[in-house]
Amino acid sequence: MPSDPMEEARFAGDVLGQFVATSDWRDIPPALRHEAKRAILNHLGCALGVAQDPAVRTALRVMRSFSGAPVATVIGQDARLDPMSAAFVNAIASNLLDYDDTHLATVIHPTAPIAPGLLALAEQRGHTGAEVLHAFLLGAEVACRIGNSVSPGHYARGWHITSTCGAFGAAAGCAKLLGLSAEQTWHALGIAASQAAGIVENLPTAAKNIGMGNAARHGMLAALFAEQGYTAAPAAIEGPLGWARAAGDVPELAAVTAELGTRWEIARNTYKPYPAGIVFHAVIDACLELRARIGGPPEAIAAVTVAGDALLLARGDRPVRNERDARVSIHHSAALGLLRGRAGVADFGMPAVADPALGAFRAKVAAVLDETLPRGAARVTVRLADGREECITVTTPRGSIERPMSDAELEAKFRDNAGLGGFTDRSDRQIAAIWALETAADLRRLMELLA
Amino acid sequence: MPSDPMEEARFAGDVLGQFVATSDWRDIPPALRHEAKRAILNHLGCALGVAQDPAVRTALRVMRSFSGAPVATVIGQDARLDPMSAAFVNAIASNLLDYDDTHLATVIHPTAPIAPGLLALAEQRGHTGAEVLHAFLLGAEVACRIGNSVSPGHYARGWHITSTCGAFGAAAGCAKLLGLSAEQTWHALGIAASQAAGIVENLPTAAKNIGMGNAARHGMLAALFAEQGYTAAPAAIEGPLGWARAAGDVPELAAVTAELGTRWEIARNTYKPYPAGIVFHAVIDACLELRARIGGPPEAIAAVTVAGDALLLARGDRPVRNERDARVSIHHSAALGLLRGRAGVADFGMPAVADPALGAFRAKVAAVLDETLPRGAARVTVRLADGREECITVTTPRGSIERPMSDAELEAKFRDNAGLGGFTDRSDRQIAAIWALETAADLRRLMELLA
Repeated sequence: MPSDPMEEARFAGDVLGQFVATSDWRDIPPALRHEAKRAILNHLGCALGVAQDPAVRTALRVMRSFSGAPVATVIGQDARLDPMSAAFVNAIASNLLDYDDTHLATVIHPTAPIAPGLLALAEQRGHTGAEVLHAFLLGAEVACRIGNSVSPGHYARGWHITSTCGAFGAAAGCAKLLGLSAEQTWHALGIAASQAAGIVENLPTAAKNIGMGNAARHGMLAALFAEQGYTAAPAAIEGPLGWARAAGDVPELAAVTAELGTRWEIARNTYKPYPAGIVFHAVIDACLELRARIGGPPEAIAAVTVAGDALLLARGDRPVRNERDARVSIHHSAALGLLRGRAGVADFGMPAVADPALGAFRAKVAAVLDETLPRGAARVTVRLADGREECITVTTPRGSIERPMSDAELEAKFRDNAGLGGFTDRSDRQIAAIWALETAADLRRLMELLA
Repeated sequence: MPSDPMEEARFAGDVLGQFVATSDWRDIPPALRHEAKRAILNHLGCALGVAQDPAVRTALRVMRSFSGAPVATVIGQDARLDPMSAAFVNAIASNLLDYDDTHLATVIHPTAPIAPGLLALAEQRGHTGAEVLHAFLLGAEVACRIGNSVSPGHYARGWHITSTCGAFGAAAGCAKLLGLSAEQTWHALGIAASQAAGIVENLPTAAKNIGMGNAARHGMLAALFAEQGYTAAPAAIEGPLGWARAAGDVPELAAVTAELGTRWEIARNTYKPYPAGIVFHAVIDACLELRARIGGPPEAIAAVTVAGDALLLARGDRPVRNERDARVSIHHSAALGLLRGRAGVADFGMPAVADPALGAFRAKVAAVLDETLPRGAARVTVRLADGREECITVTTPRGSIERPMSDAELEAKFRDNAGLGGFTDRSDRQIAAIWALETAADLRRLMELLA
């Protein structure tokens, strides 16, 4: 039951619209402002890293013939598109390898659907870096809170929550950047409710990318139409025939409104050190640490046992035939950590999958169930050729909420990604421009560096 | 249980993809070809009728700055857009007043989401009229069959079925026009599954129009991406985490595949003679007939009683304050039939709502429940000033499956709509061009007449 009887009568969209429209940048604490920059840094690095990927190139090619005036940068490409089309392609790129950020409570990747529209609109209209960071924080908050209100049922029944809730977040962020009123923002969120789509069944395919691109594009469209007077139903999000219930959920409205503006969901955002499924990060961490401890040649390793909970085994105990398999493989994760001593993007590519040394090492790895281990943890035991055993248990892997990636680690990840995309020579300047966003009068310099 | 054990193993998208890709125009019976032309005639008339409507003008204005090369006609406007944006605006226009066609079994409006993309692509790429008609029939069949497989639960729980299933239909139609293979069409349908959105809660608002426009645009996008090699999950429609189940339904796959190619859902398409909710058509018909029977001045009417089932009363027994109320009002429908002797678009506009004579007449109308009357029927009793009573019961109103609108009636409706949009002088040529579509080498002539 709502503690405040006044709250009871209000609509989710009304509360969120007021929050977004009235939020003042001067009230945003420095730590949050910094978190927004970290999210953007990670986001842009991920997009740069896949600049050569066929899926991104295809998205650019298709959208090119449907694009208006090319005023917005497509990250890492020598092409510009209209803001909506650029947002579509950039959202696809940033999320392509699932190497982007994760709001663990909902498994929403908050930045990919939300930041691209803001960067594109700001590039077109000359907004300041601070305005973009502010709109991003508000958009991410809206996406995660709506996500909280329908979790975990929404994802469990097949909705790709990043795509669905991302559309709301993008709408809220774009509404802020456009300077919409509270009521217009409410309508924008309601219009987003008629556009929220994307299914889990399609996650192993390129159709997932379309859902991501749409989330970014739809949010912008919702805000632009609300600006022009288009309306939505007051309870489009939670009404009897509204989005959440149509999708099978009775939304927990308190999760939308509780401590709004004082507790920020984006403060619980996490960044991946490895482009693998998040439950494999503990395996990689443990293996990297064991490799350092052993010191000797990896050939000395006779066998590896990885223990984890049921989720780890369900997701990761299967043959590795392609890149997607590799990113969710216990065996590949362990082989990378122990044999290669690293687990970057290239280490999950087809050459790595086909590498005979890695293949032989994967065969030495056995996965066993240990229900006493918490979710996301792993215990790795290495038996050496001389019979000696070493064992390490990791419960809070790098990148988890308890052990967040440092700014320096995020910078290193950015540099790796920039290198993969062919932008090594610019990465220092790109990083500097992102950290300087808060005082940037416009995005021109940053976007030039990203083109 | 499927009667054919081979069917059991197949996916809905596979069956539909094969059906669409292998369908041959020469196998389409003349009656179906003609029905496609009737649907297009009705569709284009509805779009022309609202050419001046602010909602359409706003959609055009917003999309204009996000449009690529202007190669596709926006119906009734002096503007062209790229095919995707044109399809978006034209779908909104055609469905704006819900005066378009209805597949009663699902309440899908089949033509608005499907035809616009086909007309726009054909205009751009020079397809023949027959190719457009063929693609339309296949697209409509896919939309209605997928709709059948999730009805009535899908709409009842809040999904605007025209928007959701329309995206599948548009994808199938565009796939046919683009000449995609069966497998590519299957992928296009799967990509559409990640884009199907739109909620009933938003139906009384402009957000509904966004869902309609998106259905048209998404279908085209799905086909274009499938053409370029984007993939989707095999069971994107019906899989455990696919569209239908995410949306709360266990789809009836037999409804998708049974008698595919021999029984056509589009043969059950209906057209509205009045721009009112379909359950009010029997009320209007009865009142028009009573007016003719009475012959004398309508002032002689002392009281009117309209009897109908629970749905009629739930939808239509309430005060009339605006155009939307008027289109779903028992009282307004009866007043129009008896007092004005007509029920065209203008008769549901604000001047009619505010007309004192109509207002006074509405006050004479009482609605009563009669559970013995079937859905869609009405019994209207008129008591005259001299105490005489006249009563007429209509169970199969004009425009129903049992009493379809004739070609001449559809032409008259088209002329009315064209007149409302300001195209009276062209309507005969427009009608002739639509009836001649089957032999048209391209759409140039028709689209010029519609601009």
